Amino acid sequence: MANRYIYRINPKEVDFSLRATIISLCDYILQTAGEDADKNGFGTRNLRTDNLTWVLSRMAVEIIRFPNQYEEIIIETWVEDIGKIYTTRNFNIYDARQRLIGHACTYWAIINISTRSVQDILQYPTYTKCIEPTACPIAKPGKILPVKSEHPVDSHTVRYTDIDFNQHSNSTKYIGWMLDSLPIGHFLENDIQRLDINFLHESVYGNNIHIYRSLDETNTVFTLKRESGEMVCNAKISWKKK
Amino acid sequence: MANRYIYRINPKEVDFSLRATIISLCDYILQTAGEDADKNGFGTRNLRTDNLTWVLSRMAVEIIRFPNQYEEIIIETWVEDIGKIYTTRNFNIYDARQRLIGHACTYWAIINISTRSVQDILQYPTYTKCIEPTACPIAKPGKILPVKSEHPVDSHTVRYTDIDFNQHSNSTKYIGWMLDSLPIGHFLENDIQRLDINFLHESVYGNNIHIYRSLDETNTVFTLKRESGEMVCNAKISWKKK
Repeated sequence: MANRYIYRINPKEVDFSLRATIISLCDYILQTAGEDADKNGFGTRNLRTDNLTWVLSRMAVEIIRFPNQYEEIIIETWVEDIGKIYTTRNFNIYDARQRLIGHACTYWAIINISTRSVQDILQYPTYTKCIEPTACPIAKPGKILPVKSEHPVDSHTVRYTDIDFNQHSNSTKYIGWMLDSLPIGHFLENDIQRLDINFLHESVYGNNIHIYRSLDETNTVFTLKRESGEMVCNAKISWKKK
Repeated sequence: MANRYIYRINPKEVDFSLRATIISLCDYILQTAGEDADKNGFGTRNLRTDNLTWVLSRMAVEIIRFPNQYEEIIIETWVEDIGKIYTTRNFNIYDARQRLIGHACTYWAIINISTRSVQDILQYPTYTKCIEPTACPIAKPGKILPVKSEHPVDSHTVRYTDIDFNQHSNSTKYIGWMLDSLPIGHFLENDIQRLDINFLHESVYGNNIHIYRSLDETNTVFTLKRESGEMVCNAKISWKKK
């Protein structure tokens, strides 16, 4: 069953163009996933009683139109299917006039909080009841190969404003660090059309994250690594000219 | 006349303690100021037709209780008085059960966008009609003397995610840079009780901002300067032990 959640774009969620940033939209998409899982009885709150939690593995977002400051958006979400390892949760984003302005597709796994081992999702009956087998509205999140360069273009140390209750970085913070590595002129000329992101390892308070980037005409690929070399995530952004 | 605005604390607005950050609360306070001015016909939208804009000069915030993730808050605001140079706008923050959880007091000036010269606010009759002479609920924002040290403890370059439509940093970003200069242990042991901040100069895209800090048992004083030496803001935070 698909459910709908309503949000409003606050002034702090827009960039210089006075339209929502991709970061704010991804924050609302993940908030919707959390609220919907809670509503259906399989949110992190429920899982925690069994020492389990959800982990976001991959995400793809396509934006048709970035909503403006103070605009209301409606995010519709449903669980498309469940495998042993991953479940697919999809999203449509509408504006107040019910016009589609974006889509997203996410893959999630359940892990044991102590051992970090991946659990078989099919063993959780509450969850498997909720499938709505409507296809993902966009191409599923692809596997992104890491950037080959050995020279980071930027770095970021994980601080107080980056972390959640586990002292891990919030996933959408990564997107901000990637975008901040680009010159402002890039945003004056281009809009994000599609973002694919693969989450590989967590980053925690104090980690120094190195940002690697390769750029062609319509795609930018990013790799984030801890200073120790461990890969944190790979992402690809497809742009369209403004 | 005092007006009330309702917000909800989203997951991205909390820190590791799962309570709203001072940054999110200040964002909502400033959003409330903007929405209320707009509603009364003297928002930035109206001023811009005369090539004028509001500038935040000083702010004081006191927090009784930081609201939790998903909590609803109500921000009440009114214009206490108007002088030639500054106007005072106050705020009470309530939780859903109408209990006071915080207060704020702000000073604003009107400037000419091109010349940056300060305007006599008393010459704008729409504005002067709206005074509600109820006293500021907390001590007015004090003048903060700059930190004496010549050695910055940290620095931050103004990037894409920091800027508004003028390519200036948003005022509340400064608070994040200050807090990020402190070790995480400080937040594990202390809560913010009161924040005073004086805004002196803007910071724009590409500026490298140096952060100076002095710390005693219950107060931390911060000075932010551009690399060129110009002072951007001074602030003081009073803490209470958790």
